[in-house]
Amino acid sequence: MTDIQVLVLAGGVGKRMWPIVIHKNLLPFFGKPLIVHQIESLKKAGFENFIIVVNPEIKDLKIRAKIVVQEKPLGQADAILSAEKEIKDAPLLIINANDFYKPSLLAQVKKKMRNDLDACLVGLKADRYLPMGYLVVEGGLVKEVVEKPGEGREPSNIVKLVVDFYQRPKVLLQFLKKAKRKRGCAYEIAMATMMQEGMKFGLVEYQDSWATIKYPWDVLKMRDFFLEAKKEKPVIMEKGVRIFEGAVVKNSYLGRNVVVGNNALVRDSIIEEGCVIGYNTEIVRSYVGPDCWFHANYIGDSVLEENISFGSGARTANLRLDEKEVVPGRVKLGAIIGKDVRVGINTSIMPGVQIGQNSFIGPGLVLRENVKENKFCYLKQEIVVKKNMQKIDSGERKKFRERL
Amino acid sequence: MTDIQVLVLAGGVGKRMWPIVIHKNLLPFFGKPLIVHQIESLKKAGFENFIIVVNPEIKDLKIRAKIVVQEKPLGQADAILSAEKEIKDAPLLIINANDFYKPSLLAQVKKKMRNDLDACLVGLKADRYLPMGYLVVEGGLVKEVVEKPGEGREPSNIVKLVVDFYQRPKVLLQFLKKAKRKRGCAYEIAMATMMQEGMKFGLVEYQDSWATIKYPWDVLKMRDFFLEAKKEKPVIMEKGVRIFEGAVVKNSYLGRNVVVGNNALVRDSIIEEGCVIGYNTEIVRSYVGPDCWFHANYIGDSVLEENISFGSGARTANLRLDEKEVVPGRVKLGAIIGKDVRVGINTSIMPGVQIGQNSFIGPGLVLRENVKENKFCYLKQEIVVKKNMQKIDSGERKKFRERL
Amino acid sequence: MTDIQVLVLAGGVGKRMWPIVIHKNLLPFFGKPLIVHQIESLKKAGFENFIIVVNPEIKDLKIRAKIVVQEKPLGQADAILSAEKEIKDAPLLIINANDFYKPSLLAQVKKKMRNDLDACLVGLKADRYLPMGYLVVEGGLVKEVVEKPGEGREPSNIVKLVVDFYQRPKVLLQFLKKAKRKRGCAYEIAMATMMQEGMKFGLVEYQDSWATIKYPWDVLKMRDFFLEAKKEKPVIMEKGVRIFEGAVVKNSYLGRNVVVGNNALVRDSIIEEGCVIGYNTEIVRSYVGPDCWFHANYIGDSVLEENISFGSGARTANLRLDEKEVVPGRVKLGAIIGKDVRVGINTSIMPGVQIGQNSFIGPGLVLRENVKENKFCYLKQEIVVKKNMQKIDSGERKKFRERL
Repeated sequence: MTDIQVLVLAGGVGKRMWPIVIHKNLLPFFGKPLIVHQIESLKKAGFENFIIVVNPEIKDLKIRAKIVVQEKPLGQADAILSAEKEIKDAPLLIINANDFYKPSLLAQVKKKMRNDLDACLVGLKADRYLPMGYLVVEGGLVKEVVEKPGEGREPSNIVKLVVDFYQRPKVLLQFLKKAKRKRGCAYEIAMATMMQEGMKFGLVEYQDSWATIKYPWDVLKMRDFFLEAKKEKPVIMEKGVRIFEGAVVKNSYLGRNVVVGNNALVRDSIIEEGCVIGYNTEIVRSYVGPDCWFHANYIGDSVLEENISFGSGARTANLRLDEKEVVPGRVKLGAIIGKDVRVGINTSIMPGVQIGQNSFIGPGLVLRENVKENKFCYLKQEIVVKKNMQKIDSGERKKFRERL
Repeated sequence: MTDIQVLVLAGGVGKRMWPIVIHKNLLPFFGKPLIVHQIESLKKAGFENFIIVVNPEIKDLKIRAKIVVQEKPLGQADAILSAEKEIKDAPLLIINANDFYKPSLLAQVKKKMRNDLDACLVGLKADRYLPMGYLVVEGGLVKEVVEKPGEGREPSNIVKLVVDFYQRPKVLLQFLKKAKRKRGCAYEIAMATMMQEGMKFGLVEYQDSWATIKYPWDVLKMRDFFLEAKKEKPVIMEKGVRIFEGAVVKNSYLGRNVVVGNNALVRDSIIEEGCVIGYNTEIVRSYVGPDCWFHANYIGDSVLEENISFGSGARTANLRLDEKEVVPGRVKLGAIIGKDVRVGINTSIMPGVQIGQNSFIGPGLVLRENVKENKFCYLKQEIVVKKNMQKIDSGERKKFRERL
Repeated sequence: MTDIQVLVLAGGVGKRMWPIVIHKNLLPFFGKPLIVHQIESLKKAGFENFIIVVNPEIKDLKIRAKIVVQEKPLGQADAILSAEKEIKDAPLLIINANDFYKPSLLAQVKKKMRNDLDACLVGLKADRYLPMGYLVVEGGLVKEVVEKPGEGREPSNIVKLVVDFYQRPKVLLQFLKKAKRKRGCAYEIAMATMMQEGMKFGLVEYQDSWATIKYPWDVLKMRDFFLEAKKEKPVIMEKGVRIFEGAVVKNSYLGRNVVVGNNALVRDSIIEEGCVIGYNTEIVRSYVGPDCWFHANYIGDSVLEENISFGSGARTANLRLDEKEVVPGRVKLGAIIGKDVRVGINTSIMPGVQIGQNSFIGPGLVLRENVKENKFCYLKQEIVVKKNMQKIDSGERKKFRERL
């Protein structure tokens, strides 16, 4: 299998990821950037030959692979063509850096390719409408990919994932170049033309768990994927982790030197290196990047990028009072917070609120709106100060105590 | 004793019970409506023959008894007369459905009736003025009942409870009919006339615990009564209860499928079926009806009807800053909340506040006033957003951590 | 050593100590007034002969010693001269009542005095500028004391503590009387004159821990000193202390009858007699005077005088969002609260805020400014009340629960 080339698409600018500033392919999961997990997973599946297409911002990947820089984010066809010089006349597997599947999928694809096929695609059974490409399948072969047909107009219930295998990539490159001259999505046009000209596209159906990151809350889906994948171990703890009396950790990852304080509760969460989960804090179903500090907080269904501090009693709300969806598909969603943010004590952050990098949120306020980068928000209160007509009587207090 | 008839007065509209909408006689205690407890308690005392007078709203009681509907809430005499057809010529005991006494009281009354008496009343020694009927006693017989004489004008220190025994109820019915034609409380007039005409009313004095529900906070007194009655067992737990690590439950009832989360504390409380007492919640001296959800809350001395959710960090205050009474006789009183209410995170509910059914209380506010039914309350805040002149330096943070 | 007299300076009005009203020398530490500790410490070091100079306010000290009242707070020379009648012709050690050192220091001073010296001072090596007197040392003798020279103009890095030993105090008294006629600090002038006239002032250098109280937050430094001094025992508990399930106490003092409730955490703190640390409260690096009550609070780096109650969820912030100093030398500082204060639920007190005696702080507010004595502060909020367009459906709730 050493001859199969894997083209990993890791470019794109992730503009939908605000307020997260770290490129999504570099977000740490279990102490390593996401893309490192992708490469390791491919290696485990037996691949050895990688071409990674990156954008200029993340070109200094510390990965042993051919790195190709796509100068501008001009789509998938352009990304593949950027790697033209590196692509040899050997089978080529194209995947997205931040799409994760069960390892068994790649074995299935390889097995499928033993048949006399020009290409092989992977389709996922969708139980509701997804804004993706739908596959038209006849006699076990993919005949057409219909891009985002709109709900109710789907030609099938199978959507295309980006696990595309080509027997002869040089042919693909030819079609891509021709397609680029036309308007529209060049990669989809090239595939359509290849199908029309009679090339055989096989299909592997996939029904198991997968995750990808498009919006910042998708980090929570990726968290699910990683926690599920480790499931033989209830909790993974790196070196230097300290857990104090009364703390409980369930189904979670704790990075290097993480401290879990007295009576804290961590469930179904990823806590990266250097975090301090102080006394009486609950973190549930969340992704917490490195060096975040907590103290008697509730963090539920939230994404916290890095170096974020919560004052005592600050809380995320993760469920609307009317129990409706916060973003499509998510009834429970807490806060999405960029790097270097500070949150004051007893502050309440409403479901789905996003806070930009290096912003300070004052104490005791209810944050309903998103906050941009480098902002300082504080509450203007009217406090009435009057003469106190009451007089505390210490003797009374003692009697009171005795009654209790 | 099979011939003694027990007339259970369960009518009345409970208009003083707002915001509680479930009829007070149907409120669940230890998984069963209050009136079912009353009937069971009477059965244990050896009674078998029940006539229950209800209002139209609660006529579908699932109890094996003669059910009589009192169409309009026209008082006790009318209630008794509604049951005329069912009352046979055998001794009759009249009690209120929601008055609870020690079981020994009924044994005493029965014993007393062995003497040659026409009737027997039960009197409670009052150590402060109560707005009830006061008994004038001479030679062991009750000679007069003085209704609400006013503080300082009490003819004795014994108030009348509603545990009234009549040897010949047909005679009582005659007197009631005559009394109805006059103005005033017909039942009291009938009794007065009977006494004046020389009928002998015996007296049983009672000094043990009792509870009745007139105002919604009286539910807390009933809770006391039930928790005290179970006292051989520190905690009663129904099927399906789950208690997580670090949680502590003392002197309480936990209904079916109740979940007590990590580090929660439940003391001296009744928690009905299906409640989820989440992480770090404290519930003290409260009545919590079915299907309520909590999360890092403090609920003290409160009455929560059913299907109520508290967001993380929402709290009830149960003591005024000046430590004065919240309602007469109660220095400690939290919130009284009707069905289907939602409370936002970090919200503070002041002592004695009542919230009507199906209202939503937003996050982060201080609720000082009662809220009617079907309201949505939220806090209007002025949040100032400025440029943040500070820059977080991750290196500094690491040095800071080392110093700590 | 019975002939050495110790003059303990315990006068002064402590006007910088607001809002603390108890005289700083009488503040209880480990159940005893500070000055009692001072005397006990001197006795342990072998001294037996004490003259205590007090102000009129605290003259009723229950200590076996000669008590001298300094009528007006006219400085150190005046304080010493007030005791003139009591000072005999024997060696005299002058110390401040509220300056605490390691016991070994006094042994060193005594040893030093065996040499042929007229006086001996104690100097502390300062690693940053301190507004104190700086010592000019030549040939092992102190030649001059330069009062508060200003940063960058220090003649040395050694500052003078108040541990002043005089072989012949009658001589000192003469110099003090002469100095009083001049303008300026008479004690410093007297010392300067004595040095100029050739009297030999020895020097003992001290580099170990010490504490003094000038500002109310210095109480925290004194707390450090006392907790460090007891270090062989992790926790000191007086009679009657009760600690409930799940509570953790580390490196702290708990006075008589203190109650530590379920899951509470007390670290590095002094908790005086009669305090109730309720459920889920964290008290860290704080001084808590007698009879304070807590309930689900966070008290960090704070000084609480006596009989103070915190409502559930009230918290002190002890770190600015920008992580800058709150007062000179303190990055972490919580609240400073006088006697008989009440704080409402969910209230947030900002770093360094001071609250005067007998003031009530209402619930749910963010307190940024100091509050004077006898005030009642409450939050004026605008709560919008609308019709609730949502309807809670109990069936939905059950489905929702099953999904979780």
